[in-house]
Amino acid sequence: MARVGAEEHPGALFDPVRYTLSMGGKRIRPVLALLAAELFGKDPDVAIAPAVAVEIFHNFSLVHDDLMDRADMRRGHPTVHKKWNANTAILSGDAMVIEAYKYIARVPHAHLPAILDVFSTTAMEICKGQQYDMDFEQREDVTEAEYLEMIRLKTGVLFGCSLKMGAIMAEAPPTEADALYNYGINLGLAFQLKDDLLDVYGDPATFGKKIGGDILCNKKTYLLIKALKNSNPEQREELAKWLQATNYNPAEKIEAVKKIYDELNLKAVAENLIEKYYLASLECLSAIHVADDREQALISLSKNLMYREK
Amino acid sequence: MARVGAEEHPGALFDPVRYTLSMGGKRIRPVLALLAAELFGKDPDVAIAPAVAVEIFHNFSLVHDDLMDRADMRRGHPTVHKKWNANTAILSGDAMVIEAYKYIARVPHAHLPAILDVFSTTAMEICKGQQYDMDFEQREDVTEAEYLEMIRLKTGVLFGCSLKMGAIMAEAPPTEADALYNYGINLGLAFQLKDDLLDVYGDPATFGKKIGGDILCNKKTYLLIKALKNSNPEQREELAKWLQATNYNPAEKIEAVKKIYDELNLKAVAENLIEKYYLASLECLSAIHVADDREQALISLSKNLMYREK
Repeated sequence: MARVGAEEHPGALFDPVRYTLSMGGKRIRPVLALLAAELFGKDPDVAIAPAVAVEIFHNFSLVHDDLMDRADMRRGHPTVHKKWNANTAILSGDAMVIEAYKYIARVPHAHLPAILDVFSTTAMEICKGQQYDMDFEQREDVTEAEYLEMIRLKTGVLFGCSLKMGAIMAEAPPTEADALYNYGINLGLAFQLKDDLLDVYGDPATFGKKIGGDILCNKKTYLLIKALKNSNPEQREELAKWLQATNYNPAEKIEAVKKIYDELNLKAVAENLIEKYYLASLECLSAIHVADDREQALISLSKNLMYREK
Repeated sequence: MARVGAEEHPGALFDPVRYTLSMGGKRIRPVLALLAAELFGKDPDVAIAPAVAVEIFHNFSLVHDDLMDRADMRRGHPTVHKKWNANTAILSGDAMVIEAYKYIARVPHAHLPAILDVFSTTAMEICKGQQYDMDFEQREDVTEAEYLEMIRLKTGVLFGCSLKMGAIMAEAPPTEADALYNYGINLGLAFQLKDDLLDVYGDPATFGKKIGGDILCNKKTYLLIKALKNSNPEQREELAKWLQATNYNPAEKIEAVKKIYDELNLKAVAENLIEKYYLASLECLSAIHVADDREQALISLSKNLMYREK
């Protein structure tokens, strides 16, 4: 995948594409597409084109989101707009969207309309999710339900889409492709909530990003939304002080906010919700009629994502 | 077309889309798609979906290009990043790319692979053209050939693509669809050169943008590239002075650069090249075997674009 566009010019457009795609990352989405095809007894290769497409599209969204969020680091490396500049991040990101569609177009004609439909629907939902995420930065009254809908759009649907495309390529029955899509939604929700947790409670040595980054930029994570809702007046005042602070010691802000999270027992609250979505994802799998051992790869992947440390 | 996404949420994402698409503009590209279908004896409606797609894609490219070029006005209105902000321009532009692909996906399945192929190939070429355009801003040695290749990518190919998609939808013979594509390339080159001319020699009352905008931002237009090449040492020194100036009276800079263009007779030089591409475009049409009167609409459109004042 790192070879995408390997000989393409101009370099200023494609160097950042190669940089982004060769940075690594967990490759969860393409793996989901391949495992979905395998689940229905097909060679995973049948899902290669949509698998590459989702990974490129996911990386496009990171490049543009990091620019919009002014995030400097990603996977332990400077983000594209830091290593190059904002214009490069914009245009190379645009090229990645189109490259993703070029992979979608490689799908056999019989499956192309269905694949194109789920891919574009999902791509638009991801844009909506990013917009809600940015809108939430300006608001102090985001509800838990709004937050969960936002991460469904921003993360869940691409997990679901990856799996559904793999199922379509494997010619799975539509109801089972949909069950697998719903498995992906639940897995994506659990995955994003785990991400929120790791930002605060992760091990800096393995996490790959700075701990507390979400706290420093007042990101409306699940933890912050629950804290704003569950806090007593004293805690809320303390939180408000830190949310409004413009001149502060970063380590001190992270420690102060984390202390409130701890007082409110939010680590356990979040872990319970993650567990709920994890179990819901397994429930979706039970609607799929394949031999149990075929499902083991997906179940293992889910478990690894739930209990990961980065 | 102004109704695209009319009921869509979140508003922060789709308001700028509606704003951009309802701003007007010449709608040349969708008209080309519809006229192409009609040229081959079909109801223009058969090309509606790709026609809408190219117009949305074109408007996406304006939103992102205006942001990257820091252009404040477009069609007499503030650009999206001025009216809203940079993040809004990035994300709403992204949504427009995806919306364009959603229209492409409406094409009947039999034509979908061919339409998707020409559309994505073209979309990627447009990104490359924009990258070359930005690269050229940093260079003083851009050749005429490099410039013409850049505008082929940035403008020509979408004209060609619009026409070819209309031809495909009308089930034209592939050789004639390709002839029409080449007609579009030549028309697009003539169109962009005319645009460069109008920026300097247009009538401020009808042009819709400020006259001399390209001069002020040192844009490497055909006129500037020719001036850098054809100028005598004295003129070159004067040009270099203005290109490097950081503190100047805008009207004075425009007047000084225009004076050099006039001394070098560049208006006539550019008009000759425009005429050359115009004639080449008509030559492409002659390879298409339809009754001559069928070609009249396209020929009229070409003439109007060549002799336009805005």
